[in-house]
Amino acid sequence: MTFAANTINVQSARLPYSTQHDYRFKDKHILSVSQFSVDDLAYVFDVAEEFRMIVRRLGVTDVLKGHVLATLFYEPSTRTSSSFIAAIQRLGGTVIPINEVRYSSVSKGESLPDTIRTLESYADVIVLRHPEKGSAALAARYARKPIINAGDGIGEHPTQALLDLFTILQERGGIDGMTVTMLGDLKYGRTVHSLARLLSMFRVKVNYISPEELRMPPELVAQLAERGIEQYEDTALEHVLPDTDVLYVTRIQQERFSDPKEYDRLKASYVITPEVMSRAKKECTLMHPLPRVGEISMDVDDDPRAAYFRQMEYGLYIRMAILALVLGKA
Amino acid sequence: MTFAANTINVQSARLPYSTQHDYRFKDKHILSVSQFSVDDLAYVFDVAEEFRMIVRRLGVTDVLKGHVLATLFYEPSTRTSSSFIAAIQRLGGTVIPINEVRYSSVSKGESLPDTIRTLESYADVIVLRHPEKGSAALAARYARKPIINAGDGIGEHPTQALLDLFTILQERGGIDGMTVTMLGDLKYGRTVHSLARLLSMFRVKVNYISPEELRMPPELVAQLAERGIEQYEDTALEHVLPDTDVLYVTRIQQERFSDPKEYDRLKASYVITPEVMSRAKKECTLMHPLPRVGEISMDVDDDPRAAYFRQMEYGLYIRMAILALVLGKA
Amino acid sequence: MTFAANTINVQSARLPYSTQHDYRFKDKHILSVSQFSVDDLAYVFDVAEEFRMIVRRLGVTDVLKGHVLATLFYEPSTRTSSSFIAAIQRLGGTVIPINEVRYSSVSKGESLPDTIRTLESYADVIVLRHPEKGSAALAARYARKPIINAGDGIGEHPTQALLDLFTILQERGGIDGMTVTMLGDLKYGRTVHSLARLLSMFRVKVNYISPEELRMPPELVAQLAERGIEQYEDTALEHVLPDTDVLYVTRIQQERFSDPKEYDRLKASYVITPEVMSRAKKECTLMHPLPRVGEISMDVDDDPRAAYFRQMEYGLYIRMAILALVLGKA
Repeated sequence: MTFAANTINVQSARLPYSTQHDYRFKDKHILSVSQFSVDDLAYVFDVAEEFRMIVRRLGVTDVLKGHVLATLFYEPSTRTSSSFIAAIQRLGGTVIPINEVRYSSVSKGESLPDTIRTLESYADVIVLRHPEKGSAALAARYARKPIINAGDGIGEHPTQALLDLFTILQERGGIDGMTVTMLGDLKYGRTVHSLARLLSMFRVKVNYISPEELRMPPELVAQLAERGIEQYEDTALEHVLPDTDVLYVTRIQQERFSDPKEYDRLKASYVITPEVMSRAKKECTLMHPLPRVGEISMDVDDDPRAAYFRQMEYGLYIRMAILALVLGKA
Repeated sequence: MTFAANTINVQSARLPYSTQHDYRFKDKHILSVSQFSVDDLAYVFDVAEEFRMIVRRLGVTDVLKGHVLATLFYEPSTRTSSSFIAAIQRLGGTVIPINEVRYSSVSKGESLPDTIRTLESYADVIVLRHPEKGSAALAARYARKPIINAGDGIGEHPTQALLDLFTILQERGGIDGMTVTMLGDLKYGRTVHSLARLLSMFRVKVNYISPEELRMPPELVAQLAERGIEQYEDTALEHVLPDTDVLYVTRIQQERFSDPKEYDRLKASYVITPEVMSRAKKECTLMHPLPRVGEISMDVDDDPRAAYFRQMEYGLYIRMAILALVLGKA
Repeated sequence: MTFAANTINVQSARLPYSTQHDYRFKDKHILSVSQFSVDDLAYVFDVAEEFRMIVRRLGVTDVLKGHVLATLFYEPSTRTSSSFIAAIQRLGGTVIPINEVRYSSVSKGESLPDTIRTLESYADVIVLRHPEKGSAALAARYARKPIINAGDGIGEHPTQALLDLFTILQERGGIDGMTVTMLGDLKYGRTVHSLARLLSMFRVKVNYISPEELRMPPELVAQLAERGIEQYEDTALEHVLPDTDVLYVTRIQQERFSDPKEYDRLKASYVITPEVMSRAKKECTLMHPLPRVGEISMDVDDDPRAAYFRQMEYGLYIRMAILALVLGKA
């Protein structure tokens, strides 16, 4: 797979099956997007694409038959846990879902390392969601089985970033040369931080559109600048919309605004409506990590450029790929 | 299968395998009992009977191998969710159980259509339980995958009504000519409303026994009258018990009675005891949707006429049939 | 398998496959350790050892394909429920997990017998965790399918005791002649009570080390004395540690001490540290049912004598054995 736009259509490209005996992810933890090289990404996406075709044709494979996934969620996330549960099942494996950590021995004071070591007695791989940054790395330090970070507070959520990039590739056929605009709460949004880091590995331009109070953290902007990424910040979407290839919208809570008038002023351009989309490129790809609460009008859902539900589905294939890869079965 | 009583014994009848290539339910939503014709019912029941025999003999089939069911329960129902989970598993499929909607993104304000569209990215069919009437129809409007209504508030719970009718057929060999007596809270009971609608498609007599405050809604009585169904209302079971072929008992909460003396007066005949059963027909079939809280004495459980636990089991086969049919695999 | 120490190494011993057609546990409930003879234990452990080797080699078997387990937990226990879920899945079966009893019809007042009879309509075997002593026996009285007691309040938790004994056998190659020291809260600890009963079937010496307030119940001491078991009680571990072959540590809550000074005084020897282990036998096996909350320092985890995480894993094989045996498929 190449990441150059318009040269290869990912959806129709023949897969490089030479990657099949590549065990670079076997027994590895998946903690951060920073552990992936461009070549790694291409490899993961090739496997994800392969699983996409298998699911379309057959619904399921037996690749992970006999393998057990434990989903350990210290905070609820229906979307992410459902996606991993579907992923292991469509690979022929099974799941131990642990969603009620607040009632379990964990909440009685057991340490995360002990919980991890208990679960790895039963399961072959553990997906961890935890409110504290660094928790996945802590778990990984003690685990003999692969840990997949499914969100550690304000830290990372690497499979989300992978699926976001995979979505762009699937929808657009490439990433190089694209202008990606991120809109909304860019200060607290773990999703956009990880995606920005991933994008910095390619030849893209990135626009940050947010209220003053919710700007992209300067450290991150500096990091991308160092890598030579062209960046632009603004509070108004209209200035960049006509040149945007990918519009990535995030949730923005009214309460975040110190000045309610500021909210009212910006709202018009921050809520994506058919009217806003009428001013976007004909090929603009509209994304959102979901759940949305009003940032994108439901009237936009039928617009072929609205990719956020397909984005969910791509997440399934990315998670299938990650599970198969860390278990050495891709 | 014929619905005429005493002419064919459903349990021993050879199944009309000609129905096997009938795809009338493929990709369809199951929202209401009103979408089933008599012929549809016969078809569903044939498939359910087939699965009953398979489960008895083998425990499981591979009919839905590779298929994933999402059970989306906005209110808890151990019985219904367990039944669907067992059904998909005994068909060789797997399940994404979502029971904690109150903690999930859903409760953070996500709309039902968005949740449905997310889940259908992972699953092939969705069972929905929601406290609001019309929610299943709303979900169906947005879904590309089949939605099965497992209860929408005071609305419908079609698979419950189907299993109730299937129970009568299995226990009695037919339905035509039967006298069905419904007892208890007939005003608020979704179960008896749906069953009454289904029964109106056959040549039956229906008795409604309830306290004055909890009578069957007049609209429903009118509907059945229009279809020519003989109906009779009373507050005392004793008047109809000797002629009752099927006694369908529902939960009645003491608090529903405005006059406690009225409760005490009626209680004797509203609580089914061995003494009450001694005045019932020798062949009377005693049903209850469960859970019961005192309406049927545990002393009755060993009475061969007590069909309520078998009724649960028939529910498994009905749900297997519905899942297989909407996925085009029956 | 023999229980004599040092004569047969369980881990390398060839299994007596003649046990394969032994159906002594088929359709039986597993309610208490007292239902097992020494011969029964050897049989269960042979099957568990067989499954251990299968899991190591293949991850999974199809022994229970088509079988459905219901895990009915009236109180949360991530560890126990996860272990049973992994066990049924690694046997090729599936699970209906019911963990939210507080929200279900059960909590609306349904009786345990009704819940059991409903679940056995869907499942082939039921694992029950319930806060009240005797609840498993009550459930068993009404069930047509096997009930496995996974803890009934201050009653029993037989699979825990079985896995504890299996751990000793696996780690030490035998049990006869061993000195087992139990440490911590011996008054309220269901785990040590059941284990003491099991141990009394063998030629062992048992030490009880606890604060005065939390001594082993006199009735139990009397029972073991009757069987000729040598027992010794003390408040200080140091007196018995040098002669201890198996040190079984349990959780002890500071609040249990009436005198905080007493806690501080005993704490030093009640918390297992590398320093304490330096005074233990070179072959001493250190066990804990987990979760621990400070009773064993994490610094001890890398000590090869620390067996508590392996103990968890042995639990998986014991539960696989019990499930397969009661379903007649071992």
